Amino acid sequence: MTSLTKYKYGHFLVTSPAPYVAHVEINQPHKLNAFHRDMWLEFGDIFDKLSHDPDVRAVVLSGSGDKAFTAGLDVKAAAGEGAVMGGEGVSEDIARKATNLRRFIYEFQECITKMEKCEKPVICVLHGVSIGLAIDIATCADIRIVAQGAQMAVKEVDVGLAADIGSLARLPKVVGNSSWIKDVCLTARMFSPEEALAVGFVSQVLPDKKSAVDAALKLAAKIAGKSPVAVQGTKELLNHARDHPVKDNLRYTAVWNSAMVLSEDFKKALMGGLTRKKPTFEKL
Amino acid sequence: MTSLTKYKYGHFLVTSPAPYVAHVEINQPHKLNAFHRDMWLEFGDIFDKLSHDPDVRAVVLSGSGDKAFTAGLDVKAAAGEGAVMGGEGVSEDIARKATNLRRFIYEFQECITKMEKCEKPVICVLHGVSIGLAIDIATCADIRIVAQGAQMAVKEVDVGLAADIGSLARLPKVVGNSSWIKDVCLTARMFSPEEALAVGFVSQVLPDKKSAVDAALKLAAKIAGKSPVAVQGTKELLNHARDHPVKDNLRYTAVWNSAMVLSEDFKKALMGGLTRKKPTFEKL
Amino acid sequence: MTSLTKYKYGHFLVTSPAPYVAHVEINQPHKLNAFHRDMWLEFGDIFDKLSHDPDVRAVVLSGSGDKAFTAGLDVKAAAGEGAVMGGEGVSEDIARKATNLRRFIYEFQECITKMEKCEKPVICVLHGVSIGLAIDIATCADIRIVAQGAQMAVKEVDVGLAADIGSLARLPKVVGNSSWIKDVCLTARMFSPEEALAVGFVSQVLPDKKSAVDAALKLAAKIAGKSPVAVQGTKELLNHARDHPVKDNLRYTAVWNSAMVLSEDFKKALMGGLTRKKPTFEKL
Amino acid sequence: MTSLTKYKYGHFLVTSPAPYVAHVEINQPHKLNAFHRDMWLEFGDIFDKLSHDPDVRAVVLSGSGDKAFTAGLDVKAAAGEGAVMGGEGVSEDIARKATNLRRFIYEFQECITKMEKCEKPVICVLHGVSIGLAIDIATCADIRIVAQGAQMAVKEVDVGLAADIGSLARLPKVVGNSSWIKDVCLTARMFSPEEALAVGFVSQVLPDKKSAVDAALKLAAKIAGKSPVAVQGTKELLNHARDHPVKDNLRYTAVWNSAMVLSEDFKKALMGGLTRKKPTFEKL
Amino acid sequence: MTSLTKYKYGHFLVTSPAPYVAHVEINQPHKLNAFHRDMWLEFGDIFDKLSHDPDVRAVVLSGSGDKAFTAGLDVKAAAGEGAVMGGEGVSEDIARKATNLRRFIYEFQECITKMEKCEKPVICVLHGVSIGLAIDIATCADIRIVAQGAQMAVKEVDVGLAADIGSLARLPKVVGNSSWIKDVCLTARMFSPEEALAVGFVSQVLPDKKSAVDAALKLAAKIAGKSPVAVQGTKELLNHARDHPVKDNLRYTAVWNSAMVLSEDFKKALMGGLTRKKPTFEKL
Amino acid sequence: MTSLTKYKYGHFLVTSPAPYVAHVEINQPHKLNAFHRDMWLEFGDIFDKLSHDPDVRAVVLSGSGDKAFTAGLDVKAAAGEGAVMGGEGVSEDIARKATNLRRFIYEFQECITKMEKCEKPVICVLHGVSIGLAIDIATCADIRIVAQGAQMAVKEVDVGLAADIGSLARLPKVVGNSSWIKDVCLTARMFSPEEALAVGFVSQVLPDKKSAVDAALKLAAKIAGKSPVAVQGTKELLNHARDHPVKDNLRYTAVWNSAMVLSEDFKKALMGGLTRKKPTFEKL
Repeated sequence: MTSLTKYKYGHFLVTSPAPYVAHVEINQPHKLNAFHRDMWLEFGDIFDKLSHDPDVRAVVLSGSGDKAFTAGLDVKAAAGEGAVMGGEGVSEDIARKATNLRRFIYEFQECITKMEKCEKPVICVLHGVSIGLAIDIATCADIRIVAQGAQMAVKEVDVGLAADIGSLARLPKVVGNSSWIKDVCLTARMFSPEEALAVGFVSQVLPDKKSAVDAALKLAAKIAGKSPVAVQGTKELLNHARDHPVKDNLRYTAVWNSAMVLSEDFKKALMGGLTRKKPTFEKL
Repeated sequence: MTSLTKYKYGHFLVTSPAPYVAHVEINQPHKLNAFHRDMWLEFGDIFDKLSHDPDVRAVVLSGSGDKAFTAGLDVKAAAGEGAVMGGEGVSEDIARKATNLRRFIYEFQECITKMEKCEKPVICVLHGVSIGLAIDIATCADIRIVAQGAQMAVKEVDVGLAADIGSLARLPKVVGNSSWIKDVCLTARMFSPEEALAVGFVSQVLPDKKSAVDAALKLAAKIAGKSPVAVQGTKELLNHARDHPVKDNLRYTAVWNSAMVLSEDFKKALMGGLTRKKPTFEKL
Repeated sequence: MTSLTKYKYGHFLVTSPAPYVAHVEINQPHKLNAFHRDMWLEFGDIFDKLSHDPDVRAVVLSGSGDKAFTAGLDVKAAAGEGAVMGGEGVSEDIARKATNLRRFIYEFQECITKMEKCEKPVICVLHGVSIGLAIDIATCADIRIVAQGAQMAVKEVDVGLAADIGSLARLPKVVGNSSWIKDVCLTARMFSPEEALAVGFVSQVLPDKKSAVDAALKLAAKIAGKSPVAVQGTKELLNHARDHPVKDNLRYTAVWNSAMVLSEDFKKALMGGLTRKKPTFEKL
Repeated sequence: MTSLTKYKYGHFLVTSPAPYVAHVEINQPHKLNAFHRDMWLEFGDIFDKLSHDPDVRAVVLSGSGDKAFTAGLDVKAAAGEGAVMGGEGVSEDIARKATNLRRFIYEFQECITKMEKCEKPVICVLHGVSIGLAIDIATCADIRIVAQGAQMAVKEVDVGLAADIGSLARLPKVVGNSSWIKDVCLTARMFSPEEALAVGFVSQVLPDKKSAVDAALKLAAKIAGKSPVAVQGTKELLNHARDHPVKDNLRYTAVWNSAMVLSEDFKKALMGGLTRKKPTFEKL
Repeated sequence: MTSLTKYKYGHFLVTSPAPYVAHVEINQPHKLNAFHRDMWLEFGDIFDKLSHDPDVRAVVLSGSGDKAFTAGLDVKAAAGEGAVMGGEGVSEDIARKATNLRRFIYEFQECITKMEKCEKPVICVLHGVSIGLAIDIATCADIRIVAQGAQMAVKEVDVGLAADIGSLARLPKVVGNSSWIKDVCLTARMFSPEEALAVGFVSQVLPDKKSAVDAALKLAAKIAGKSPVAVQGTKELLNHARDHPVKDNLRYTAVWNSAMVLSEDFKKALMGGLTRKKPTFEKL
Repeated sequence: MTSLTKYKYGHFLVTSPAPYVAHVEINQPHKLNAFHRDMWLEFGDIFDKLSHDPDVRAVVLSGSGDKAFTAGLDVKAAAGEGAVMGGEGVSEDIARKATNLRRFIYEFQECITKMEKCEKPVICVLHGVSIGLAIDIATCADIRIVAQGAQMAVKEVDVGLAADIGSLARLPKVVGNSSWIKDVCLTARMFSPEEALAVGFVSQVLPDKKSAVDAALKLAAKIAGKSPVAVQGTKELLNHARDHPVKDNLRYTAVWNSAMVLSEDFKKALMGGLTRKKPTFEKL
């Protein structure tokens, strides 16, 4: 597992455990990997870079340490920055406070959304404490895998808030069971890995964190062995489909593929199928 | 269980079995709780009131008696009102008949939709006969619980109609299994509580009506104990997410929360978390 | 099982095994029912005809022979037609090649989409080899049934392509489990009938092809016995719901039903319910 | 000009100056026809009634007296009701104040929108002072006519607000000149009848209020002489087109007309065209 | 002006008055170029062919003879075909009549819409009688030119119908003056060329039919001299913009151009600009 | 006119000619203010900063020098960067070239769109050469003013391209005359200030650059004197309205204003109206 030297960040570890695979670890285990503003700015920056990095074709995200994927917002740090309060002290006027908060939430949403926008597929491993922001992040991933023992919850209602970094926006598109979604979002209750699998929030449950990360890395390696033209197109077109009528997506797909099918990857992959030799694809 | 004195209706019972919890019962058990026009007008009226009632934070809906949640439309009564026929006798012209019918369907849809629009979460308990309109109503609820023995069906095809009060509009957003949806809607066949749970139409199955209503009331009480600012925001934002692209919902959410985060509830809930004392929230 | 004489096609068999039921079989078993351009043009033509054929009320689609529903694209034949290559030889200019490809993909999409647009419900039986185009086609059907032993995969990534005939557009609307969808689309791995049932891609698994086709025909016969006004309205309104907000669908539904409720079918079906005699509906 | 006896309202006059034509006048001339909450509740009620009144086929809206169509919000009255302040005194919590305000704005918007939803066309005559709410109301009308001397402005920015009762929502759909819209909305400046005509905000300028109202009544009478099936369908389909893609509207239109074309009006109108005799249409 | 030999149609003349320019003339001058079903089927067929014809880069549409562009529907012929009546005699059931009508309207809409879908720009010349269907057709064109003396009207309300072949769907996207649109659609009144120019329904008024057709042909020739890659992309992207949010269109545009910019046309056009020699573009 | 010291850029001048007004000048007059990649990155950066700068309430954009607002793309510089060619040399594979181009276009679009997203209104002054990118930029502005002598054209078709930085996306929302839009976009012809005013592309024509810039600055100063809460809300809500149905915008508006109306600006502005003293608003 080699370190990706171009990815030096204070709160994240980025390594390359296999060719074309990047592993991003939230690296604040002593704080249960809880986030403050500097961290989500770094988080966005990392996925911006991964998106166009020709040495990366699939990404795995997990938390450092045994305790937590992430415990969500580091409320103390956030309060210190005055961020959550929307610029307390800056103005007493409600419209100005609200404006500051709105800008703050936009920025936060944008950083987390960069993982969804990353052109390379992202596999998220949920393990240990995985509450609040953990779910916002997980719903941005393409594939979700969970380790036994994970404690998952859409926790925001318990701190007097509607979740605002993406859980409410994306859960209805990620899971086809609105009664369950309303239940977990309105009660903030914990749900188990088995429950998450049954309703389709995750697609695999593994016995522990190690095996879950290994499964994620293996899956990432498998994807990284495919044509990057095909893989990145598939991610983009599925994300587009989520938010558009079928007819719109078909048209977008036809335009997209009108150039992509002209790729050498198509010929290489076809030939690889016939000769049963694994093709080598150019970087993308 | 105290009666909510401001809710006096001919066909519904509205009580308050726990603080901030309302229980609405369809109260025509001798007619299997079947609906005629006066009933859906009352139904809409009740949910309009609950929506802004500061003494209510969560609602449970069930049918009176052991036999039925509701058997759907009271065809005889409806025919008596001349309603279903679109103003039979008023005009022989097809465009005018069709216009009367269209207005009639709009009004009917609007009354049932008021439950979805109610700002407070609604938990629907399906039990006994639960066909036709029962499903239209259930898909408007936030959370669906079912009692063993419930006989559920999207029954309209069997009376020569496409369902028009919301089942077809909402099932594809409520259940992520279009093959099953088409199957039950095109055949009008009964489906069991187990099947409903497996496909995600409901999120809990209880042994009988009593235990199902109890579970619903307990769940309602749990939700009623949370910050109403957080709970009502969560309902609104999840409903918005259902019908909008992710990006639109994120923006709407940020604007929504820019004011809501300034609430005392946020501070109280945070403090409650730290002190492990249940906070008391102001009415909403 | 009588042959439908008006449906004479080189690559498909169309029979009528029961009143108002059509059975369409992809009839190239020696080639694993793989498609080339002539076939999808025929395919589109058949479903255009079925759509308005008053003698048809429900359709079953399966493959001929024991080996395959369809192995997808007949790459050799397609290459012979120069089609996949986007008019190789016609022009060396990339924009012109891409334009030819775009037109080619539009036409292909349109032919397969005609099955979705067919006003009569279509039940698709997946069996044997069912990869690539098989999934594009299956997602256009209303109801999906699978036989044990079926080998299903969204195979396109393995030939260097993002699927472009509808799998990526429709899977997110057909199955409410985005983690699973991304998994099978990005890895091109096989998935089993049990897995397909668990995630909701199909609504029934039968032991073998024969029993699956029988189940499909029985289901088709059941649907064909209902009011065609109700059945065809239900298909249309559910498809509309998939791509529109709830509010839009409710309005469309009201306008649709304002004429449809004036049908004799409504009265016949009501009367049939009261007298317990199966009503006979006029053709549509 | 006979009074429409079923329309008895404290702040509005409703008369019938010609067969099937209703004239609604805002009747608080001593207060420049400025609105408070009771007035917009009445306003909504009137248009709800007109919508289904078979004796009405076209509506004209104007202000009583020579001074104003309306000067907008009656700030003093509104303040008295505590309305604008969002329930001042009810709660000090910002989330609760904001929630009250949100409900207040919804209700206000809904009342004004009822004019747009009224199934019969509405012609709005702008004259004299026509600022703030005057523009919100005018954009809800189908046709806008203005009298010389009218003082029009999207005035809200001058009271520290973004307009929230519909001007900002509808102006971009009513006028195809976004540079002008931004100019008048951001500066709150007055614009003249000529300017309004040039940019397409109104379609006629008349020399004074009397001639403008006369022109509006004449136009209303002309529309009232046409088939109400055709007229009401045309209003509905144009309003639908504004907010939907062309393809969606075409489909909605086909479904709408599939019943409407079966009307006697079609035959009567055709026959009237051939015989050059004005046909008489049944009420709607 | 050479005849395009591949375009032999009973009711239309298709000629090529200049390189890469096609002129389509509605050729039933003795019937004021009124349409019946065979004609709109031919109309659709012609534009389907023009869309992919490499010898055509721009199209002009006008009517034969001096009297009319088109008087709309040939009611007598249509009645003879039983078309307008929705299959009179086929069934007495209202739902079946309405279904036949719906299918009939879909087919009619689809034929006319093929002009909008034609990949090559279409310039429509309105002259003489130009009512009803004339406006439906004109709103499908890219550019509208009108000759003095043209009598234009959205005439359908006068035959007891809401226009259903596209005028109501497209006028709100073609003209930014909703007060004028409602006025002409609700009254069915004639509007003059000057009025059409002032509101933006047409972009040029010429003194008579001959000069209008000449201006259209000159404009078509100008467009035909440009890069067909650039021209056809511009039409497609503008039509897409009409029905999508800005953000969606930007993304679609980027995907579209990612292949198109690789064309030789870009280099040739750049070089042509530098050398001031008119470049020659390959067919498309 | 003081320089805004925090805005030091190589290719742009940013000054503050009046309180709360920023003037941005494209500052490459010797190259007709043509853009290369560094410039649009700076451009985006400037508007990002202005968006949240509390010292700025309105912005004017113009070109330096007498010759040009901007001549569009600096083709030579762009070619030097290899940008336009999509990474020529990086890969010979078409899919990879197309991917590079797509990323390049996204980045370019995003930089220009930042002007639209800037929370403060932007007034764009078109003067001298104003072609290609000039129009893309101008359609992002809120208000457009033009100086006599300006040479405007949607020029891209003349270099073999469909415009891809926003002209095609935004013109249909900015100007309500689709015949004119298609005409100027398909022919790439020049259009005059008078024509631009007549069709609504600009809202003012001034005799020369100096008077146009003065008019823009005066307008900006006027806007800067209003409540920034009201002004910024008005911009946001109008932009939202452009891309959403009326109903969606009304709801978004109500949520937005539920916090904003609680501002001191509302009270100050009301009071200012009564006392006829210009109120002073807090920064935003």
